[in-house]
Amino acid sequence: MSVIDRVTGELSRLPGIGPKTALRLVHHLMKAPKEESRRLSRAVAELADKIRPCARCGNFSEHDLCDICSNPRRDASVLCVVEEAFEVGAIERTGQFRGLFHVLGGRLSPLDGIGPEELNVASLLERVRTAQGAVVEIIIATNASVEGEATAVYLEQLVRPLGVRVTRLARGIPVGSDLEYVDGTTIAEALAGRREM
Amino acid sequence: MSVIDRVTGELSRLPGIGPKTALRLVHHLMKAPKEESRRLSRAVAELADKIRPCARCGNFSEHDLCDICSNPRRDASVLCVVEEAFEVGAIERTGQFRGLFHVLGGRLSPLDGIGPEELNVASLLERVRTAQGAVVEIIIATNASVEGEATAVYLEQLVRPLGVRVTRLARGIPVGSDLEYVDGTTIAEALAGRREM
Repeated sequence: MSVIDRVTGELSRLPGIGPKTALRLVHHLMKAPKEESRRLSRAVAELADKIRPCARCGNFSEHDLCDICSNPRRDASVLCVVEEAFEVGAIERTGQFRGLFHVLGGRLSPLDGIGPEELNVASLLERVRTAQGAVVEIIIATNASVEGEATAVYLEQLVRPLGVRVTRLARGIPVGSDLEYVDGTTIAEALAGRREM
Repeated sequence: MSVIDRVTGELSRLPGIGPKTALRLVHHLMKAPKEESRRLSRAVAELADKIRPCARCGNFSEHDLCDICSNPRRDASVLCVVEEAFEVGAIERTGQFRGLFHVLGGRLSPLDGIGPEELNVASLLERVRTAQGAVVEIIIATNASVEGEATAVYLEQLVRPLGVRVTRLARGIPVGSDLEYVDGTTIAEALAGRREM
């Protein structure tokens, strides 16, 4: 198998990249200065070598503890629970959350054989218990899908007995949306969750 | 700069990959077995280390001469001239061409400062001359763009005096197209080039 076929094959394993796109990328790399390919190669190798889950929250990290867990200025009294590590970035980019995270590593999905044992649920309960009251609120930020909601309800039942406030992200009309294009379920949630002006 | 930012940055330099897609690819690599990232990294490094232009035709090659130039079963009497090395693959995949290639490395584009000296034109004439009559036809397969056509006309004037037959790819209706959606210039070319049935 030629080098070109091998790179094309590896690139087309990436999500959203088919064989034609992969070939176009290879052609770009072959025309570009070799240093560009070398930098890409090194960066991807480093990714494999250095990135691991944070020992406390499960976020991506270059060290034992991630940048968020090891930042003393974060508010350790609030934990935001997300399904996947890459969702941490989506919340961080808002600049509106100063607490810590806990990454489940997925959502409950019995049909796919994913139960609580497959997720970082036990470690969440352990974190709350060993904090001895220092955790006062858990924001459940699982996705607004059927499985995400089921996971949220399940977690709520486990966490509430520990004496912690449990909240979840508001449902409603996405900012910038025309009502005309928003689905009925979302509008119903937005109505139910309406707030005083 | 974190490893994740670095990989995201490198990936988003690739054509058609913006920062969001790059981040999605990085998330995929972080979730996938590390061996997947390592294989990708190795393949891209090999691309930089091993691929160079064929010394004769300018096609991508892992050796001094590319697989096509070094294949004794190819017909050395026909040269197909293309703008870019990756266009060789498009013609090869048809399985209908048994001759050799010559890669110009671009097209004439005075506004971008690309004249004959920037392209592999001298080496094409040299190839034809040193073949001493063994090259009987040159198929000019530059793109059907304004610059591609100008390049074709320029090459034709240089090559014809060497006593070689000069042809170019037919213009016409793409196979599978509805006439309704084909532009007028293409239909005009197809009319002018109409053939007996």
